[in-house]
Amino acid sequence: MPSAVFSALSPLDHRYRMANPDLYAHLSRYLSEEAYVRYQLQVEAALVEAFAARGLCPPHVADQVKAAAAQVTAADVHRHEQITRHNIRALVNALSERVSPEARPFIHLTATSADVMDTARALQYRDAARHVVVPKLKEVLRAFIAIAQREAHTPQMGRTHGQHAVPITFGFAMAEDVSRLGGRIVAVEQAAQRLPGKMAGAVGAYNAARLLVPDPDVFEREVLGRLGLEPADHSTQVVEPEYGADFAHALVTAFGVLANAADDIRHLQRTEIGEVGEAFDAHQVGSSTMPHKRNPWNFEHVKSLWKAMLPRIMTVYMDQISEHQRDLTNSASGRFFPELMAGLVLAADRMARELARLGVDRERMARNMAGSLEMVVAEPLYVLLAAHGHPAAHEEVRRLTLEAERTGQPLRELAARSLSLAPYMAQWTPEQRRVIDEPAMYLGMAAEKALAVCRRWSAYLETGQAGPLTGAETV
Amino acid sequence: MPSAVFSALSPLDHRYRMANPDLYAHLSRYLSEEAYVRYQLQVEAALVEAFAARGLCPPHVADQVKAAAAQVTAADVHRHEQITRHNIRALVNALSERVSPEARPFIHLTATSADVMDTARALQYRDAARHVVVPKLKEVLRAFIAIAQREAHTPQMGRTHGQHAVPITFGFAMAEDVSRLGGRIVAVEQAAQRLPGKMAGAVGAYNAARLLVPDPDVFEREVLGRLGLEPADHSTQVVEPEYGADFAHALVTAFGVLANAADDIRHLQRTEIGEVGEAFDAHQVGSSTMPHKRNPWNFEHVKSLWKAMLPRIMTVYMDQISEHQRDLTNSASGRFFPELMAGLVLAADRMARELARLGVDRERMARNMAGSLEMVVAEPLYVLLAAHGHPAAHEEVRRLTLEAERTGQPLRELAARSLSLAPYMAQWTPEQRRVIDEPAMYLGMAAEKALAVCRRWSAYLETGQAGPLTGAETV
Amino acid sequence: MPSAVFSALSPLDHRYRMANPDLYAHLSRYLSEEAYVRYQLQVEAALVEAFAARGLCPPHVADQVKAAAAQVTAADVHRHEQITRHNIRALVNALSERVSPEARPFIHLTATSADVMDTARALQYRDAARHVVVPKLKEVLRAFIAIAQREAHTPQMGRTHGQHAVPITFGFAMAEDVSRLGGRIVAVEQAAQRLPGKMAGAVGAYNAARLLVPDPDVFEREVLGRLGLEPADHSTQVVEPEYGADFAHALVTAFGVLANAADDIRHLQRTEIGEVGEAFDAHQVGSSTMPHKRNPWNFEHVKSLWKAMLPRIMTVYMDQISEHQRDLTNSASGRFFPELMAGLVLAADRMARELARLGVDRERMARNMAGSLEMVVAEPLYVLLAAHGHPAAHEEVRRLTLEAERTGQPLRELAARSLSLAPYMAQWTPEQRRVIDEPAMYLGMAAEKALAVCRRWSAYLETGQAGPLTGAETV
Amino acid sequence: MPSAVFSALSPLDHRYRMANPDLYAHLSRYLSEEAYVRYQLQVEAALVEAFAARGLCPPHVADQVKAAAAQVTAADVHRHEQITRHNIRALVNALSERVSPEARPFIHLTATSADVMDTARALQYRDAARHVVVPKLKEVLRAFIAIAQREAHTPQMGRTHGQHAVPITFGFAMAEDVSRLGGRIVAVEQAAQRLPGKMAGAVGAYNAARLLVPDPDVFEREVLGRLGLEPADHSTQVVEPEYGADFAHALVTAFGVLANAADDIRHLQRTEIGEVGEAFDAHQVGSSTMPHKRNPWNFEHVKSLWKAMLPRIMTVYMDQISEHQRDLTNSASGRFFPELMAGLVLAADRMARELARLGVDRERMARNMAGSLEMVVAEPLYVLLAAHGHPAAHEEVRRLTLEAERTGQPLRELAARSLSLAPYMAQWTPEQRRVIDEPAMYLGMAAEKALAVCRRWSAYLETGQAGPLTGAETV
Repeated sequence: MPSAVFSALSPLDHRYRMANPDLYAHLSRYLSEEAYVRYQLQVEAALVEAFAARGLCPPHVADQVKAAAAQVTAADVHRHEQITRHNIRALVNALSERVSPEARPFIHLTATSADVMDTARALQYRDAARHVVVPKLKEVLRAFIAIAQREAHTPQMGRTHGQHAVPITFGFAMAEDVSRLGGRIVAVEQAAQRLPGKMAGAVGAYNAARLLVPDPDVFEREVLGRLGLEPADHSTQVVEPEYGADFAHALVTAFGVLANAADDIRHLQRTEIGEVGEAFDAHQVGSSTMPHKRNPWNFEHVKSLWKAMLPRIMTVYMDQISEHQRDLTNSASGRFFPELMAGLVLAADRMARELARLGVDRERMARNMAGSLEMVVAEPLYVLLAAHGHPAAHEEVRRLTLEAERTGQPLRELAARSLSLAPYMAQWTPEQRRVIDEPAMYLGMAAEKALAVCRRWSAYLETGQAGPLTGAETV
Repeated sequence: MPSAVFSALSPLDHRYRMANPDLYAHLSRYLSEEAYVRYQLQVEAALVEAFAARGLCPPHVADQVKAAAAQVTAADVHRHEQITRHNIRALVNALSERVSPEARPFIHLTATSADVMDTARALQYRDAARHVVVPKLKEVLRAFIAIAQREAHTPQMGRTHGQHAVPITFGFAMAEDVSRLGGRIVAVEQAAQRLPGKMAGAVGAYNAARLLVPDPDVFEREVLGRLGLEPADHSTQVVEPEYGADFAHALVTAFGVLANAADDIRHLQRTEIGEVGEAFDAHQVGSSTMPHKRNPWNFEHVKSLWKAMLPRIMTVYMDQISEHQRDLTNSASGRFFPELMAGLVLAADRMARELARLGVDRERMARNMAGSLEMVVAEPLYVLLAAHGHPAAHEEVRRLTLEAERTGQPLRELAARSLSLAPYMAQWTPEQRRVIDEPAMYLGMAAEKALAVCRRWSAYLETGQAGPLTGAETV
Repeated sequence: MPSAVFSALSPLDHRYRMANPDLYAHLSRYLSEEAYVRYQLQVEAALVEAFAARGLCPPHVADQVKAAAAQVTAADVHRHEQITRHNIRALVNALSERVSPEARPFIHLTATSADVMDTARALQYRDAARHVVVPKLKEVLRAFIAIAQREAHTPQMGRTHGQHAVPITFGFAMAEDVSRLGGRIVAVEQAAQRLPGKMAGAVGAYNAARLLVPDPDVFEREVLGRLGLEPADHSTQVVEPEYGADFAHALVTAFGVLANAADDIRHLQRTEIGEVGEAFDAHQVGSSTMPHKRNPWNFEHVKSLWKAMLPRIMTVYMDQISEHQRDLTNSASGRFFPELMAGLVLAADRMARELARLGVDRERMARNMAGSLEMVVAEPLYVLLAAHGHPAAHEEVRRLTLEAERTGQPLRELAARSLSLAPYMAQWTPEQRRVIDEPAMYLGMAAEKALAVCRRWSAYLETGQAGPLTGAETV
Repeated sequence: MPSAVFSALSPLDHRYRMANPDLYAHLSRYLSEEAYVRYQLQVEAALVEAFAARGLCPPHVADQVKAAAAQVTAADVHRHEQITRHNIRALVNALSERVSPEARPFIHLTATSADVMDTARALQYRDAARHVVVPKLKEVLRAFIAIAQREAHTPQMGRTHGQHAVPITFGFAMAEDVSRLGGRIVAVEQAAQRLPGKMAGAVGAYNAARLLVPDPDVFEREVLGRLGLEPADHSTQVVEPEYGADFAHALVTAFGVLANAADDIRHLQRTEIGEVGEAFDAHQVGSSTMPHKRNPWNFEHVKSLWKAMLPRIMTVYMDQISEHQRDLTNSASGRFFPELMAGLVLAADRMARELARLGVDRERMARNMAGSLEMVVAEPLYVLLAAHGHPAAHEEVRRLTLEAERTGQPLRELAARSLSLAPYMAQWTPEQRRVIDEPAMYLGMAAEKALAVCRRWSAYLETGQAGPLTGAETV
C-alpha cells in the first residue's frame, strides 16, 4: 500500500482501496481524475478530426492532435493549471505544446470548456456503466439466480410484518431480488446509453461554430458521432441535466434493491432464525471481545454503503437548477458523481462474493415453518369455505383462530368438529382437502414463479434481451 | 369556504385550497381518500367479475358486487373501520352489506389487502397523471412554446455565471424550458403507464388463488386486464417498488425543470435587469409596508413548492426496503405520495397562468446587451484569428481585453490597430468581418434552434409523438 | 366526520384525522391556518399596545385593536385576501374595519408582513412545542420509564448484528430509549424556547420605525416582550433561519429515537423471537386474508411516519438560503413546517398508547437466552484468562469456540479440560468462577444502569431538571 | 504531486488535494485513516493506564503499551488486518507484538471494538473541530467583520424578492453573515465539545469490565477522563447517535450560512449589478472560449460544495436507527462523516481568501440606488402619513405610486401637490421631512446595527464569549 492511501480523506481512497486493490484499480481506470482527463482528451481529438473531415484543417493536424491526446497525462494538465487556474485551458496548453504551431489554433477551436467536460463525462459514465457497474451488477444477478434456481423448491415460511404468514419457497423469495435487480440493470444500461454530449459552445447557441460552418448542429453531430454519442436536444452551456438525473436515479434504485436483499439476508441470519449464514474465513475475527460471534457484517456493509450513497441523489436533483445559460454551482458538486458508481460497485462486489458462498440451512427453514403450520391453515380454510358459499367465512375462521389460541387446540381440529362448517367442507375436492391436511403444501405457484423469473433473466444475461414472463403462465 | 378548511393542518388543505377551489376539487377527484376508496372498489368489482367470467360464481353475483361498488362511499367504509380497525376488511364489509348472502363470499376472495390497495394506487396515479398532472404540465409547455416562438428572434444577452457571455435570443432561452419540460412530460406519461397492479395474494405466491384456479398468474392478468393494468413481473405482498420510484423520479425532475425556469424568470425581473415582468392586478398589494413593490412572488412560489416537495422522494427511496415478503413500514409513508402530484400541479398551474401574461421588455433586453457588446467581440475575434492560423489567439485576445479594460479603448479598435493580427484578419470573409463589426449579430443558431425545438414539441402536443429535431439541422 | 375530510388531499387531514379526531382537534388548535392567523393578530395587537405604552397613540386605540384582534377570524381575513391578494394586508384590513378611523393608522404601522408572520410562527411553534409536542413526547418517555423500571431485572439476550451477544436485562434495553428520548425532549424544549421574533421592518434595518422612535431596536424588544419573545440578533426581512433549523433538527432527531425504538420492538415481535407483543382488540382484524395474523402494525406505523417526515428537514436546510435581504422562496415551503410537528405527535401518540399495553413475555426471553448461554461464556472466559495473565486469551478462546461448534461439546467443558488454561483458571475468585458456571448472571451493570437512567429522567419529569447520572455510579 | 493523487476516486483526494496541498495535509492530520488509527491507539493506551492506576496491572505494563501506541502506524494495522479481517483485532495485534508477553493480556481488556472506535471518533472530531474547522470558520468570520465594519456606512439598496426595497448599508448586509456565522461557530464548538466516548463493552452493560472492577461506570469515567472526554449517559455497543447528529447539524447549518453568503455575493457580481467583484490573478483564465469573462467561480464553488455535502446529513439521521444493542449498518456510512468536515473547511478556506480581497464598488452601489430612490419614498411617506393620523395611508400611497408610474412624475411631487395629504404633512418634524426630501438618508439603524453586531463577534473572537448585543441598543 502506498503511504498516500493512509493519508487519504475519503474511505473510498483509503479503507475501501485497501480492502480490494484490484477492484479499486478497475474503478480508478474509469472514475479517477486521470480517467476524466483521458476522456477530455478524446473529445478534443474528435473535434479536430471533425474539422479535418470537413476540410477546415489539414489531415495531418488532426493526426498530430490525436497523437498528442494519447500522450498527455493528468499530471501534465495539472502543471499547466498551476499557471492558468483553468483546467480546460490547461488541457489545451498541454496539448498545444506537443503539436506544431500550425496545429495549435485548431485545438479546442469554437468549443467551450463545458463542451469538452460534459461530453467527457458522458463518455466516462457510459464506459463505467458498461465496463464496471453493469458487469458487477450482473455478477450479483447471476448469484441471485443461482440461489433462486437451486432453492426453487425449498419450502420457507413467508413473512409479512416479521410474522409468519403463509408458505413460499426460498427460491421464490430470492426471485424477488432477481426480478427487481434485473429490471434495474436494464434501467442503468438504458440511462447510460442515453447520456448525451454537446459541442454547442458557450451558451448552447453555436455562436462560435457558426463563424466557421453554416450548420453547426450537424457539425456537432459529426464530432459526437466519432465518440459514439448523440447531442442533447437543447443545450445551454451544459447539457440538459435530466439525462444525468435519470442515470443517478437508475444507480440509486439499483442500490436500493441490493440494500433490501442485504437486509433480508441479515435478518434471516438472526440467531433465532438462522436460515442462512455468511461464510467465515478460518482466521477471521468476528468480534474483538466476543470470540464466538459470527456477524453478518458483509450484508450490513451493503446496507450501510447504501445509506452513505443514497442521499447524494439530492445533490443531483438540486443541480437541475442552473441560472440562465448556466451558473457554475453544479461544478464541484458534479465532481462527486462518480463516487455514486464507486459506492454501488463496492457494495455489489461484496454482495456477489458473499452470495456465492451463502450457506442455506434447509432444515432450519423447515423447522421454523413447522411451528406455524397449524395457524397457516387459517387462510386456505377461510378461502375454501367462502369459495363454497359460506357467507362469513373470514369472520368465522378469525373466531376459530382465537379459540385455538386460547385453548391450545389445533385450528384444523376445531374446524373439523364444527357443525356449521361441515356442509361447506363436504364439497371440497380432494386436492383442496389435502392443503388443509398438509399445510406445508400450501405453496401456491412459488416454485414455478421462481423458475420463470430465473429463466427470463438468465435469457437476458445470455442475450441482452429480457423477454416476457410467459414461462410462468404456461408451466 | 367550509370552516374545516381553516382548521386543516396541511397547507394543501387550507391555504392552497382557498387559493384555487376549482383546482383543488379537480385534484381531490383523483388524489383524496375518497378517490382512493373509489379505486379500491373498482378493484374488488373486477375481481368478482373475473370469477364470474371463469364460471366460479354466477354472473348476477358479479353484477351485484359491481352495483354495490358504485354505491359505497368513503364514509361508509370509515364507519366499518371503527369496528374492524382494518381498512380493507371494512371495505369488504361495506360491500357485503349491500349484496345478497350468496354474493358475499366472493367479495375479496383469495385477495390480500395489498392486492386491492396497490392495484388501486396504480389506477389512481395513472388517472391522476392522465387527467391532471400531464394536462397541467402541457399547459405550461404550451405557454413556454408560445413565448419561445414569439421571441425566437428577440436578441438577449446570454449569461453564464451571472455574467454577460455572448448573445442569444430570448426565444432560445425559453426553448431550453420547452425541451426539458417536454422530455419530462414524456417521462411522467411513460412511468405512469408502466405502473403495475397485482392480484398475487398475501406473499405474492398466489397461495389462495391456486386453491381455486390452476393458473392464478393468468387469472391475475385477467383481473388486472379489466382495469387496463399489467401485473408486476414479481410481487411479494406488494408490487416491486421501483415502478413507483420511477414515477416519483419523473415527477420531481419535472418539478425541477419548473423550478429552474421560475428561478431564471425571477432573476430576469431583478430591478437592475428588468427584462421580464410578472403581471399585477389593479387591487393587488405587493408589500404590506412598501406600497411601490411589485414582487415576482408567483415564480418564487413555484421554487418554494419545489423545495417543499423534492425531499419527499427520499421517502420513496427509503421505501424500496421492505423486509421479506413485506413489512408495513411503507404504508403511512406511501399515503403521502399523492401530495407530490398535488404540489407539482399547484406549481404548474401557477406557472402556466403567469407565463401566459408575462411581460417581456425587448427594449430593456437590447439596452442590457448594448453595454457588453464591446466585450462580446472577444470570442469571435479569438475564434476567427485561430481559424485563420494564429497560433496563440486565445492568449493574445485575453491580453487585449485586459488592455481594453485598462485603457477604456474598445477591443475592436485595439485589434484593428494590432500589426501582429492584421495578416490573419485580412483573410476573413465579409460575413466573418461583419460579426466583429456588429457583435449583436453574433447570435449563432439561436433563433433556428428555438424554432426547431418548438416545432418538435408542438408536434408532440398535437400528435403525442415527439419526432427528431431534424428541423433544426435543415433550416 | 364532515365530508370535507374524505376529500382532503393530505393524510394528515383525512386518514389521521379520522383515526383520532380529538388529537386532530388538539393539533389544529396550534398548527392550523386558523391558529396561525390568531397568532398574527396577537402580534398586531402587541405592536399597537407598545405604541400606546410609548405614548405614540392613545391607550384606547390599543384597546380597540386588541378587542378587534380577539374577534377577527381566518375566514374574515380570507374574505379580504380575495381582493388584496396579500394575506397580511388582508389581516390589517380585517382589523381596520373593526376599529375607529382614529385607530386605523396605527395598525401594522412601521411593520413589514414578515415582522408579523415570523413572530407569529415563533409564538405558534413555541406554544405547539409546549402544549402538544413536549407533553406527548413526555407521555412516551413515561411509558418507556415504566417498562424499563418494571423490567430492570428481566434477563434478556443482548443482540448485536442481530446475533446473540452477551446478556442484558430488558429494562436496560428500554433505558436506551429513556435516555435518548429524554435528551431529545430537552433539545426540543430548548430549541422552541430560543425561537425569536422580529419587528425590524422591511429589510431588518428598522427604517420605518426609526421615523417614529429614536431607538427602534429597544422598541422591537418592547413589542416582542409583550409576547414573551426575544428578537433575533440580526434580521433581514426575516429572522435568521438557523433558529428554525435547530428546532426542526430537534424534532426529527426526537422522531428518530421513536423510530429506532419502534424498529426494535417490532423485531422483538418477530414470530421466531416473540419476546414482546402488541395488544389486539377483540374485533380487530389483523389481515384481510390471513385471519390468524397479529401484526406489529402500530410500531410499523411509527417508523413509516418517520420515513415520511424525516426528509422534510432538507427543505428547512435549503431554506437557509434566501437572497440578499430576502427572497420569497422560503414562503410556501415554510408553510409545511407545522406538518413536521403533527407527524411527530401522531407517531408519539400511537407509541405511548401501545407501549402502555405492550405485552412482555419474560419466559420467552429466558428461553431465547438459554439457547446461547453456552457460547456467551466465550467473552468472560477470555477476559478472565487475560486478566490473569494469559498472553493470547482471545485467540485461544476463539479456537475453542470453533472446536465447540465442530464437536458439539460445551465451550465450558472444553475450557475446563484444557491443561494450558488451568493455571490461569486456578487464580479466579469465586465470583469470577460463578459467571462462567452460570452465564445467565453475566449481566454486568444492566439492572443498576437501567434504574439510574430511569431515576434521572423521572426526576426530570417531576422537576423539569435532568440531573447527573450519579445514581448509577453509587449503586 | 504523487501519482496516487490522479488515480484517486474522490475529488477530495484528487482535485481538492491538488488545489491546496497544505490545507489537504492539515485536514489529513485529523481526518485521514492514519489519524483515526492514531486516535484509536490513544484510547487503547488510556485503557491500560487506567488499569495501572487501579492497580490491576503493573505501571510498566502501561508504559509499554503507551510507548507501543506511539509507534504503531496505520500501515502496521493494515498488515495485521489482512489476516484477521477485523480492524480492531488487527490494532491489538500490532500493539501486542511491540510489548512484552506480560503486557499483552491487558491490551483492549474488557473493551469491545466500538469502545475504541467511538471514543476515537469523539477525539478525532473534537480535535478536527478545534484545530481545523472552527479556526477556519473564524477566519471567514474575521473577513466578514472586516468588510462589515469598513462598509458600515456605505449606502446600498436593500433588496427583497430581487427588487429594490429600502436602503441599507453594505456593512449591514454583511453583518447578517457575521451574526449567523458567529452563532454557528458557537454551535459547532459546543456540539464538538459534547461528543462523548464510551468504555461500556459489547452491549453497553459493562459485562466484561464488571468481572474485574465493581464500579465499571466509574472506571469508564476514569479511562475517558484521561482523554478529556465524558461518557455518554447510556450506551449500547455504540454511543447514543444524537451527539453525532447534533454535531453534523451544526456543521451543515454553518455550511448553509456560507452558501447563503456566497449566493449573495455572486449575485452582487452580476454584470447588471456589479457592486462587488472577485479578484483575478494576472495569468488566470476566466473562460476557455470567452477571453473577456471574469466569473465569480470561487463563490459558485462554495455553494456547489454545499450542495454536495448537505444531503449527507440524511445518512447521519438514518444512522439514528440501529437494531437492538447495535447493528453494523452505521459502520461504512459513518466512515464518510469526516468528509463533511473536509468539505466545509475547503469551502471556508476559499471563502476566507476571496473575502479578504473582495472588491467593493461603492460608486456602483450609489448609482444602482439612485435609480430607485424616487420610489423608496413610498414607505416613509405612508408611515409618516399614518403616524400623523391618515386613516388609509397605505392605500393612498399605493394609488400615488401607480400614478407616478403612469405619468412619470416623481412620487414626492405628486404627494406635495395633494390637497388631501397636506394637513398630515404639515405636522411632520423637520427630521421626518428630511427623509422624504433625501430618501438616501432613509437608512434606519443600518450602520449602528452593523457595528454592534461586529463588536459582539469581535469580542467573541478575542475572548471566546459572545456577550449580548447591548451595544446596538445604546447607540
